[in-house]
Amino acid sequence: MATTTQPTESNVDVLIIGAGPAGLMAAAWMAHCGVRARIVDKRNTKIFCGQADGLQCRSLEIFDSLGFADRAWKEANHMIEICMWNPGSDGVIRRSDRIPDTIVGLSRFQQIVLNQGRIERFFLDNIKKHSGDSIHVERGVLPESLEIDASKADDDAAYPVTVRLRTLTEEESAPPQQQQLAAGSKGKSGSVADGMFRSNLVHEDDEDELIRKSKTRDPGASEIVHAKYVIGCDGARSWTRRALGFELQGEATDFIWGVMDVIPITDFPDIRMRCAIHSAENGSLMVIPRENKLVRLYIQLKEVTPDASGRADRSKITPDLIFSAAQKILSPYKIDYEYCDWWTAYQIGQRVGTSFDAHSRVFLAGDAVHTHSPKAGQGMNVSMQDCFNLGWKVALVAQGICKRSILSTYQSERRRVAQDLIDFDHKFAKLFSGRPAKDVMDAEGVSMEEFKDAFLKGNLFASGLSVNYGPSNLVVKAGDAVAQGDGSIKHVNSAKLEREVSAEVFAKKQALATGLPVGMRFNSFKVLNQACARPWHFQERLKADGRFRVVLFAGNILNPDQKERVNRFCEQLDNQGSFLKRATPPGKEVDSVIEVLTIHSAKRTETELLRDFPATLHPYNEHTGWDYNKVFVDDVSYHEGFGDAYTNYGVDKERGCVVAVRPDQYVGWVGDLEDFEDLQGYFEGCMVFRSATANGVNGANGVKGLPIR
Amino acid sequence: MATTTQPTESNVDVLIIGAGPAGLMAAAWMAHCGVRARIVDKRNTKIFCGQADGLQCRSLEIFDSLGFADRAWKEANHMIEICMWNPGSDGVIRRSDRIPDTIVGLSRFQQIVLNQGRIERFFLDNIKKHSGDSIHVERGVLPESLEIDASKADDDAAYPVTVRLRTLTEEESAPPQQQQLAAGSKGKSGSVADGMFRSNLVHEDDEDELIRKSKTRDPGASEIVHAKYVIGCDGARSWTRRALGFELQGEATDFIWGVMDVIPITDFPDIRMRCAIHSAENGSLMVIPRENKLVRLYIQLKEVTPDASGRADRSKITPDLIFSAAQKILSPYKIDYEYCDWWTAYQIGQRVGTSFDAHSRVFLAGDAVHTHSPKAGQGMNVSMQDCFNLGWKVALVAQGICKRSILSTYQSERRRVAQDLIDFDHKFAKLFSGRPAKDVMDAEGVSMEEFKDAFLKGNLFASGLSVNYGPSNLVVKAGDAVAQGDGSIKHVNSAKLEREVSAEVFAKKQALATGLPVGMRFNSFKVLNQACARPWHFQERLKADGRFRVVLFAGNILNPDQKERVNRFCEQLDNQGSFLKRATPPGKEVDSVIEVLTIHSAKRTETELLRDFPATLHPYNEHTGWDYNKVFVDDVSYHEGFGDAYTNYGVDKERGCVVAVRPDQYVGWVGDLEDFEDLQGYFEGCMVFRSATANGVNGANGVKGLPIR
Repeated sequence: MATTTQPTESNVDVLIIGAGPAGLMAAAWMAHCGVRARIVDKRNTKIFCGQADGLQCRSLEIFDSLGFADRAWKEANHMIEICMWNPGSDGVIRRSDRIPDTIVGLSRFQQIVLNQGRIERFFLDNIKKHSGDSIHVERGVLPESLEIDASKADDDAAYPVTVRLRTLTEEESAPPQQQQLAAGSKGKSGSVADGMFRSNLVHEDDEDELIRKSKTRDPGASEIVHAKYVIGCDGARSWTRRALGFELQGEATDFIWGVMDVIPITDFPDIRMRCAIHSAENGSLMVIPRENKLVRLYIQLKEVTPDASGRADRSKITPDLIFSAAQKILSPYKIDYEYCDWWTAYQIGQRVGTSFDAHSRVFLAGDAVHTHSPKAGQGMNVSMQDCFNLGWKVALVAQGICKRSILSTYQSERRRVAQDLIDFDHKFAKLFSGRPAKDVMDAEGVSMEEFKDAFLKGNLFASGLSVNYGPSNLVVKAGDAVAQGDGSIKHVNSAKLEREVSAEVFAKKQALATGLPVGMRFNSFKVLNQACARPWHFQERLKADGRFRVVLFAGNILNPDQKERVNRFCEQLDNQGSFLKRATPPGKEVDSVIEVLTIHSAKRTETELLRDFPATLHPYNEHTGWDYNKVFVDDVSYHEGFGDAYTNYGVDKERGCVVAVRPDQYVGWVGDLEDFEDLQGYFEGCMVFRSATANGVNGANGVKGLPIR
Repeated sequence: MATTTQPTESNVDVLIIGAGPAGLMAAAWMAHCGVRARIVDKRNTKIFCGQADGLQCRSLEIFDSLGFADRAWKEANHMIEICMWNPGSDGVIRRSDRIPDTIVGLSRFQQIVLNQGRIERFFLDNIKKHSGDSIHVERGVLPESLEIDASKADDDAAYPVTVRLRTLTEEESAPPQQQQLAAGSKGKSGSVADGMFRSNLVHEDDEDELIRKSKTRDPGASEIVHAKYVIGCDGARSWTRRALGFELQGEATDFIWGVMDVIPITDFPDIRMRCAIHSAENGSLMVIPRENKLVRLYIQLKEVTPDASGRADRSKITPDLIFSAAQKILSPYKIDYEYCDWWTAYQIGQRVGTSFDAHSRVFLAGDAVHTHSPKAGQGMNVSMQDCFNLGWKVALVAQGICKRSILSTYQSERRRVAQDLIDFDHKFAKLFSGRPAKDVMDAEGVSMEEFKDAFLKGNLFASGLSVNYGPSNLVVKAGDAVAQGDGSIKHVNSAKLEREVSAEVFAKKQALATGLPVGMRFNSFKVLNQACARPWHFQERLKADGRFRVVLFAGNILNPDQKERVNRFCEQLDNQGSFLKRATPPGKEVDSVIEVLTIHSAKRTETELLRDFPATLHPYNEHTGWDYNKVFVDDVSYHEGFGDAYTNYGVDKERGCVVAVRPDQYVGWVGDLEDFEDLQGYFEGCMVFRSATANGVNGANGVKGLPIR
């Protein structure tokens, strides 16, 4: 039935296109911050098996800040050790090295492996919990057009992005995989879940076909959405990217790899270790042990080569072809399988998006702006981290809490990471896909020493913990913002640095907390709650709720001089003109936008929360009394050892310091207790200040209404 | 409408009456073991707030074995420290001591606090997950009659217990509390959740009324259930206990206490610590900090006294009366509240059931057989642990895996614990309810030193980890079974000990594993998986799945002599007449009833699973290959330190030993690798053996079908 119904129109603060891990991360921020948002995906179901599966340390820290790291940690396989296997002089592979999979001491988490379907499930549950189901994935919904009214891009009240959405039929939105989803046994490969539908060896025709089909359907299923912000997380063949006219730049290589998730039957001794195996002549293999007895094999397919167009012929690639390549590489060890959970193949290539946003209104994230080989276990992690960087910025700007100018830091911060990732992957893929050198004279072969060295260096990069953001209005540090960013001057033009700092001045400030480099994530050590003595990893107190934090290292609070310094700092916080008061919207709790957390270094049993700490540090609420969850002490616990936080953070135990932390746990500013004005400037640079007089922030800090003493 | 419909009749293996924590624990065992079971409760909803809330170490270890300790650990408040407050010479209370709430090093868990409603939720989710929803709580269902056909009590195939059940109307099954469940603010006490409906100050009339009402209803709502076993977990006023004609023996005291869960507004410094406060003249108070800013106060009500009948007048007790008593005790500190979540009052009394079972067919557990004061945080824990002891025994007997004679150990093991609990509670309640001594000459007052001493001793008892079961067919140790049990000779008569052991012989065997006392729970230290190097707390491998376990401490497997000892032990296991083969029903996997786990002490990197360990220790399955989850090594981990398990278990690193572990993690037998015949006897004493020839146990251990090497 053809109707002439006009499409419905509606406004939304944030529209997210694509509900993979990146899109779900963006949606999680909106849920945690209470922003009106929608998330749509053209597929009609979530992923159940296969796909990306490595979770690096930083991703787990992020999951913890959202509240579900424990679920991943419990279900996943924990990869502990990497074993390297290389040909000996007789050409037979043997174990040459063992190294820890995660660098020891880097994080409270280590790298684990779990299929993407479970991770999406954790996100979906978390988004539901935090949004009260007001944000849920709308599946089978395809964007058809996107327009930005550039004239309104800088208007905070406007909805300058217009997107037309169309609801697909069940049939259209199911990828071919789903009709045969039940995983299968060998010999029945028709029933084995096939990852080809998302592999880069599939042409984009499928998708164009999908859009064509949808155009013929009832126009009543269309709607117009006016959004303040749009985040495109729609994968390597991103519709949003193409709608913006942006490109991925880079090259495909000749290396073609297969991937299989199987339950192996084998006598290879290290099948439950992560293994990097170079055979003498038959190519390379990576072993990734997984949950439920599964093992993922990344298998180099030396017998498949690209055609003249640079693309490999998909029809040649079968599970049998892939697995027989694995058997050759692993020889003389035997390997077989009955059960295959998933398989795919891909051609290694490295590409980065030319631009990550349009008018700071439409953003691209994840595979939409960087593609590379999956073996390093980076793809899903970097994609989620893109949106962990972007989500809170968009949320707080949409809510009028932060200035629009901070949005330009998304590209400067994350495009730089994408560039680093591509460089790393390019080098690593070449070394891993190359034939091992027979001896030092074999110039065409890859030196196994060089490979091991790259692997070790790559391990730090792969943890996600080496990320170090350059100077901006969110990160007060010295140096060239362009050079430390993605090399574009875009963000420097659009948002002049409010506070430049000389190398000399910055070095003095950074020296106050040598273990908390400005621009890097706030590392975690155990401290005790002053009021109840419970040990916490301090990062557990830096939840992803959209709040900035000021961490006051109060030093030795029992020293009267130091106590006086702390008192002065708190008096300035209490002032009606302070950033704490002026950044907080009227009627909101004093800790709703910026939370002040304290870590002191005196003995726990010699100090008391109410007696020794100014009220500002544990605000009073007339309905619920004092706040017992804001003051911590660096002391020995009964059951969980000593975090030695001051030493580990490189902070003086007598005099302390002050650290400003972004909502995504990155250190934005370090200074002394006397640097209040500079700290005020930091927040003035990124947050919207209310007028000092008109502000009626609640539950301040005072003795007003206090029934006691 | 009166109908003449006959009640429906059905059979079930196990019927559980009462769905509090004890009943849910029993149901969890049935779900984990795959036993056909039903669980009914006369209330039509679960508990949401209030009630018991302390979880001791052992309960958390048990939750972990079921799979949900992490949920409790995450949501609960962690109580770290106990502060003792006593009057000084001026009569003013002051902090006199701090001690850790959980004895350091006792367990990998520490005591936490969480309301019973959440714990019931975890159980319900867990039961659903493991039973596929075939076991679910049938609410609003009341038992009306129970008969045991004693002539069939020893017939394994019979259903000798007949119970008539009646479904209540909504109205009948809702306790008065629920109609006003919304928690409330002070001054609106009518809306505050009131625990009185389950307090022991309420007379039993309510319940009798409920039964009377149901008799007048449509008899079509009745049914007859024939059960192999019935477990009565229906609380202090247990219907099941009365139906059996059993009694609780013991006395009520004159001490009356109030309980309130409030969000306190106070200047008392230790409000987030667990506090035991003795005021000079106004009575005692215990502070239990809880989740969500709540604090539970146990408040002695000196102004309420029992009447001539020994019972206090309920109508006198209001939240205002209770809270004003707390204010007096805490003076000169101030305390107030706006929000009260729940309150109740109780009269301290200690009673133990005369008998815990009838014909080993109907069992009583939890409050049905022991009541005491709640302050020690013991009630829910001991009740759950009753059913953790009973559940697997009933499940395995019902399945024909274990001999019926093991059922008599429930009373000998758990009635003894109940007796110890009552003794502890009696002493503790007296010391806590007494007026502090003014000086050493004040003979009527309680010495605060004596109180602290009792507290410290009580702390070990309260952890649940001092439980030490006496000799039986499940626990091979020396000594008098009656004296180490509950003092009754019941179980000794009904199940003659199959294997008595002299003190001298036992001492030698126990010396092989001094850290694993026979009769106590298997302590936990970290070991590494041999195949993947992942650290595990060994207890994590002792899941509550109904399996016995043989833990082979294989010692230094690289020593040829020791390897030969291990080989001989495994050869005996492989023998068709071995307990491993004969206890396993035909057609079942070789590890389905008894699982063999290995911990060796050689270096991980110098050993290999497939090369160094007999196939029996990592059984081969033709569909999924070798089992990589049964062999562990006592070695240093990369990220989680060194468990030093051999030293901590007190086992010789060269020669090892063998330990048999019950499904509930209690050590049942210790011996040498050469004591195979004795170990065979242990299992013969408690398990049903199949004939050696007719047994076709699957997936044995051999090279049959192995495609490799």
